[in-house]
Amino acid sequence: MTDDTQDHPTDHAGLGVLSVEDCNELLFNTEIGRVAFVSDGDIVILPINYRFVDSTVVFQTTDGSKLDMAADHKTVAFEIDGFDSVQQTGWSVLVKGTAQYVMEEEVEAQLRRLGLRPWAPYTRERRWVRILPDEISGRKIE
Amino acid sequence: MTDDTQDHPTDHAGLGVLSVEDCNELLFNTEIGRVAFVSDGDIVILPINYRFVDSTVVFQTTDGSKLDMAADHKTVAFEIDGFDSVQQTGWSVLVKGTAQYVMEEEVEAQLRRLGLRPWAPYTRERRWVRILPDEISGRKIE
Repeated sequence: MTDDTQDHPTDHAGLGVLSVEDCNELLFNTEIGRVAFVSDGDIVILPINYRFVDSTVVFQTTDGSKLDMAADHKTVAFEIDGFDSVQQTGWSVLVKGTAQYVMEEEVEAQLRRLGLRPWAPYTRERRWVRILPDEISGRKIE
Repeated sequence: MTDDTQDHPTDHAGLGVLSVEDCNELLFNTEIGRVAFVSDGDIVILPINYRFVDSTVVFQTTDGSKLDMAADHKTVAFEIDGFDSVQQTGWSVLVKGTAQYVMEEEVEAQLRRLGLRPWAPYTRERRWVRILPDEISGRKIE
């Protein structure tokens, strides 16, 4: 309590609240996250290799549930985190938003230039999906 | 294609499918995962420090959304993963199930003996929550 930078906000559980700037920086500097969505009444969480471009989360996917998820502007959540098991410290950023296909050719070209591609072996046609954030929040434990 | 153990199943996206035994071992040997649930129409993903006990995912939480989520036997998803960015390999395990409070005192005592506790600072009363799996599945990229 002698730290003069102690006035960081905390949430109801006592976790430190990350600023919008911190969240954006973490989103920009991380490449693996998890997207969650409702599919046939079940909640599904899948890891994705992504980039944070123009304040949106973009990733490539193949035909299947992740793509289906994005097809009808569905509500999704996206999360990134990092932990130090020894120090028992960590952080997480949660993005709530809407998924949609990237249809614009010029945006596709821009994304392709980023070199983003799925790690999974190529088996089917791939498409770009973008998550438009409605809300971005972050917490830290330290 | 000369590997005589090559007959591993793959899913529609070409990812390797992990066996139930592999999933259970990964769940047993990991301590940080993410739980996703629907809250007020939004999907939320939160990281948790957990243990895999008696084929259930157990964690401790404080008053708040995670606890609310568990209060009414809500459908949840739980995910763990691991990635090697250099090798571009990885794995993930997804648990679909139902969350519930652990009410039995003897189970609470058993869980307490595991030494599991949240990393977050103590601020409020804590309770044990358990996810009863309906379905466990895993994928790998290699």
